[in-house]
Amino acid sequence: MKNDSSESIQFRNEYSSGIRTFKEVSKEQESLNAKLLIQAGFVNPELAGVYTYTRLGYEVLKNIENLTREHMSKWAGEILMPSLHPVENWMVTDRLETMSSLFEARGANDISRKNNSSRYVLGPTHEEIVTPLAKKYIKSYRDLPLALFQIQTKFRNEARPKSGLLRSREFRMKDLYSFHQSEEELLEFYEVMKEEYMSLFEDLGLADDTYITLAEGGDFTKEFSHEFQTLIPQGEDTIYLDRKNKIAYNKEIVNKENEKKLGVKFDDLEQVLASEVGNIFPLNLKLSKPFDLTYMDKDGSEQPVYMGCYGLGTSRLMGVIAEKFSDEKGLVWPERIAPAKYHIVTLFEKESDEQYKLSKKLFDIVGKDSLWDKRRRVSVGEKLNDADLIGCPYRVVISSDSIKKGGIEVKRRTEEKGEVMLIEEFLKRYVK
Amino acid sequence: MKNDSSESIQFRNEYSSGIRTFKEVSKEQESLNAKLLIQAGFVNPELAGVYTYTRLGYEVLKNIENLTREHMSKWAGEILMPSLHPVENWMVTDRLETMSSLFEARGANDISRKNNSSRYVLGPTHEEIVTPLAKKYIKSYRDLPLALFQIQTKFRNEARPKSGLLRSREFRMKDLYSFHQSEEELLEFYEVMKEEYMSLFEDLGLADDTYITLAEGGDFTKEFSHEFQTLIPQGEDTIYLDRKNKIAYNKEIVNKENEKKLGVKFDDLEQVLASEVGNIFPLNLKLSKPFDLTYMDKDGSEQPVYMGCYGLGTSRLMGVIAEKFSDEKGLVWPERIAPAKYHIVTLFEKESDEQYKLSKKLFDIVGKDSLWDKRRRVSVGEKLNDADLIGCPYRVVISSDSIKKGGIEVKRRTEEKGEVMLIEEFLKRYVK
Repeated sequence: MKNDSSESIQFRNEYSSGIRTFKEVSKEQESLNAKLLIQAGFVNPELAGVYTYTRLGYEVLKNIENLTREHMSKWAGEILMPSLHPVENWMVTDRLETMSSLFEARGANDISRKNNSSRYVLGPTHEEIVTPLAKKYIKSYRDLPLALFQIQTKFRNEARPKSGLLRSREFRMKDLYSFHQSEEELLEFYEVMKEEYMSLFEDLGLADDTYITLAEGGDFTKEFSHEFQTLIPQGEDTIYLDRKNKIAYNKEIVNKENEKKLGVKFDDLEQVLASEVGNIFPLNLKLSKPFDLTYMDKDGSEQPVYMGCYGLGTSRLMGVIAEKFSDEKGLVWPERIAPAKYHIVTLFEKESDEQYKLSKKLFDIVGKDSLWDKRRRVSVGEKLNDADLIGCPYRVVISSDSIKKGGIEVKRRTEEKGEVMLIEEFLKRYVK
Repeated sequence: MKNDSSESIQFRNEYSSGIRTFKEVSKEQESLNAKLLIQAGFVNPELAGVYTYTRLGYEVLKNIENLTREHMSKWAGEILMPSLHPVENWMVTDRLETMSSLFEARGANDISRKNNSSRYVLGPTHEEIVTPLAKKYIKSYRDLPLALFQIQTKFRNEARPKSGLLRSREFRMKDLYSFHQSEEELLEFYEVMKEEYMSLFEDLGLADDTYITLAEGGDFTKEFSHEFQTLIPQGEDTIYLDRKNKIAYNKEIVNKENEKKLGVKFDDLEQVLASEVGNIFPLNLKLSKPFDLTYMDKDGSEQPVYMGCYGLGTSRLMGVIAEKFSDEKGLVWPERIAPAKYHIVTLFEKESDEQYKLSKKLFDIVGKDSLWDKRRRVSVGEKLNDADLIGCPYRVVISSDSIKKGGIEVKRRTEEKGEVMLIEEFLKRYVK
């Protein structure tokens, strides 16, 4: 069985990949990340705030999620909770009424029958599921601390989903929940999580421009929560940045009262645009109380469990990274999450046999981590533009010209000029 | 930061895993797979037909899904389509009316406002999304064949979800869609998929008892579809099995008309119980027509695209495997998908230091693929029962008795008797 893939961009050794770029993007897509990702063929818009992750896009998302999994697995066990939630659990926390962006799911036939028997909340977050679940695991102090996480699709009925992957109605998220004997133990774990998040952002190439930022506590706590904010030119949040002390304050908490409470002068700080890439909350007893989550202490007394929760939008991260590492030519993926490390472009102006053979020789070695553009009916300019738009870290051009000059032309996506070298030299220098 | 994990079953080097077994299972859980998986702590029931995959359960599910991914990636590009579908797409195929098990999603506040602006179908399958998506990738014959797949959560409002993971309201599925120039090319790919499915079932340890089975065509085709049916004692389907020719017929198609059409005598065949683990359909032009999916042929004429679809329930497979490979003591996982290969049980009757040190020495080597039960407050019997119930392929008992006899006692889950040997001997024989 053969696939005539001469006219495709090949990905690895896949028989059929479905990779292409698009010239035009609908004007409905206002955000930079959606424009870039749609044009480069990484996502396909299905509805307002709802996207398909196409071949290369899903590869990037999986890379981000696998990296996230690596970091979180050090501290928590991975599970998968459902998206269909019992309405009753959301009544316990009162959020059925107070959270405006909830989706409900019902049997399609039940709606017309006005039968409420199968009515669910479509999970936007999982405190309402994980807290009752934890009750089954936590009996005594010996069962604590407990920490669980998942990486999963979430649903929020955002009113104006105009920010591409930064604020979607259906999105991907890592959420981790921790359970502790005391506030002290919770805060210790909370600090460990802060460090682990920064270590993940380091791997993602974001650490230099990402700041821990004090923000409002959200639904569950009047204390501050901590956001991780990444500086990007089109950021949706304004933060007051204290570069020296590597800390920031979300504009939403900038007021006289907090100025006193925190002992900072907001006017002295730099105002910058940023986008949230993570958000962690010390929940304390806010959820343990309504769900009656307790443990038996050493002295036999019943004590409430302290909780923390730690969110990270993996699809949102993909959008932020797409915006932050892009230029006028397209995407510029950091090496750890790029869909492929090498983008091999074979140009067939003349003596095409030789170019093909040399490309094949290279692809046979680095194919696992490569795209290979061997289209013959597409112009040189279009192929080079596509390589820039897709944004793999290394572009390798194989043409009659490069062969004449001594081999293959290797160019980093972040640099202007390439360098011609033998395949052997390329392998020695860039492939490990 | 330390976790007092002396009283836990440890998984790998995880700081906090959340692993325990349960003595009792609610009587609402009627199916063997749900009973076993809940008792062993692999899933937690949240609602009728809705489960959380807990630590060990999600590990098994991921193993099944990664194996599935490996096989499917040979033939198709992996993408991720959304769960929120436009209602309009389901009107195109008429299934909004004809499919009784659809879930609808709406903004929770929109329901009371009777505002239909955000009304979606919650995807039970993805023909209605992938066909319009394929239109963006298929222009000419050069773009064919195209094959795309995803592994994803699906939703179906099953009327009586009493079969545990075999028929859930929220479940995990691999769905692959292929697009072709002609019926001939489609059928060639269809046969390749049959073989790839059987090769996957081989890896899952199911091949000997899994049969390609002719069944009804479903919503889209009056032709037969092909199911993969695995023989299990509590199977929900009855199939007419022709062991010699390695083919079967679902009871639903057993009638005089088909007897003639297929040239078989159903009465001569063996009637057995089985459970469906996969289902593939030659869709032909059933979807291309309503969605107007065409391609430009070599001669410049516009031609309709031939389609096939190939489903495999990954969570359902977990349920079938749980039932098929179980005994009165609990689960018996095949090696490729077990949550861990080794279950180390340390018994602390006396001289506990020595047992602990030897266990630690072993765990330091095989920890990546091990559970370690080092609980001191749990009886010997309970620990051995838990090991049987959880069902890892190898149980390694380290006790004063095993040390006296020369080291560690290794027992396969499928065998009655263990064998005492030195750690070095164990590593040589069982660890690669």
